[in-house]
Amino acid sequence: METMPTPSRRAVVLLSGGLDSATVLAIASSEGYECFAISFDYGQRHRFELETARQVCQAARVTRQIVVPIDLRAFGGSALTSDLAVPKDRDADEMSTGIPITYVPARNTVFLSLALGWAEVLGAFDIFIGVNAVDYSGYPDCRPEFIAAFETLANRATKAAVEGTGTFRIHTPLIHLTKAEIIRRGVSLGVDYGLTHSCYDPDEQGRSCGHCDSCQLRLKGFAEAGVADPTRYQ
Amino acid sequence: METMPTPSRRAVVLLSGGLDSATVLAIASSEGYECFAISFDYGQRHRFELETARQVCQAARVTRQIVVPIDLRAFGGSALTSDLAVPKDRDADEMSTGIPITYVPARNTVFLSLALGWAEVLGAFDIFIGVNAVDYSGYPDCRPEFIAAFETLANRATKAAVEGTGTFRIHTPLIHLTKAEIIRRGVSLGVDYGLTHSCYDPDEQGRSCGHCDSCQLRLKGFAEAGVADPTRYQ
Repeated sequence: METMPTPSRRAVVLLSGGLDSATVLAIASSEGYECFAISFDYGQRHRFELETARQVCQAARVTRQIVVPIDLRAFGGSALTSDLAVPKDRDADEMSTGIPITYVPARNTVFLSLALGWAEVLGAFDIFIGVNAVDYSGYPDCRPEFIAAFETLANRATKAAVEGTGTFRIHTPLIHLTKAEIIRRGVSLGVDYGLTHSCYDPDEQGRSCGHCDSCQLRLKGFAEAGVADPTRYQ
Repeated sequence: METMPTPSRRAVVLLSGGLDSATVLAIASSEGYECFAISFDYGQRHRFELETARQVCQAARVTRQIVVPIDLRAFGGSALTSDLAVPKDRDADEMSTGIPITYVPARNTVFLSLALGWAEVLGAFDIFIGVNAVDYSGYPDCRPEFIAAFETLANRATKAAVEGTGTFRIHTPLIHLTKAEIIRRGVSLGVDYGLTHSCYDPDEQGRSCGHCDSCQLRLKGFAEAGVADPTRYQ
């Protein structure tokens, strides 16, 4: 699938501190990319994930990590960036119907745009993002057609597009994997999932609630993968 | 060109405080849109434009203005967001060759993404931006092919795209106008250009340098339009 890059080839990896993006970082490294991680302090209620993102970067020895502050509470509209309650204990049917209140308007569009800007400065043409269209939460900006449209945009938005010096690729190595497959892949690459964090609504000690959609998908994934879940639950 | 919307139809207008975006705001209002203005505090050295943006919003009686802080100095790469010097006194040939150092990587992609997120929260499907492909500074993200790609993206990135509740349109009413035509249009709509600000490198009193690309394009535009330039120069 992926061609082996030269060792000096740079990639920008979107890193939330969650299970998926930690796996993506390991995949990008294993493919020989020099990794630059970008994380976002966007007013998320699970801001704890930024600390885990830092630890994941350390463990993976990324060349550089930046945390971009971008306050998406400026326009609200999501349970993750406002006082709206995070839904708990929804069953599989509920999770697969409609777009949940945890959807943050245009979040991946904003994040990919910022990753693109940094990539341009770094001279990187490869951007990795851990979107997933199988065990996901129904977010429109996790779908393959969204990623394809962003890749087209990237190749028209930038200096390189005009000067013909390179072509951007948006890599989504998890897009067609189940959560269990993602976990197995990460384990095979040595990812320490004890450093990662998925919960939308952790307590003050950073322990996961075990009941939000994200915790439920994580629990189910570890169970199906037959791997012990190192997460600390409340 | 534009169909007349119902009076309650909302639009998000990207507003920098410059001549172009003030004209776009007047155009959107004249077409019957209820206008919501979005401005960005992105670490630009000409931060003075945010004060002018506020005044433009007041004069145009927008329903709401938000200023989103997004520090693009996090990755630098532009004379507008770093210590690199702003070029002065370039002639027309120099200005029309290549992409200048004032280009901010992925700026319009980032700004449009944030406008899209806010539009989604407001239930607005119309986004106005003052990009221009005639008297412009050679920025890749001011070209019609960039705007078309962003419109496609918007219609895949959002809840409305999945639920089929509406179609986003990116309006670029200035894209094929010369600076002189933009000014004449604005004057006919009552825009007070004395409130606007174009300079990339103003002094502490907010007076324009008169020599950067942006000042030169503005001066030339007023001269060609046969309109007195109300700008305060150093």
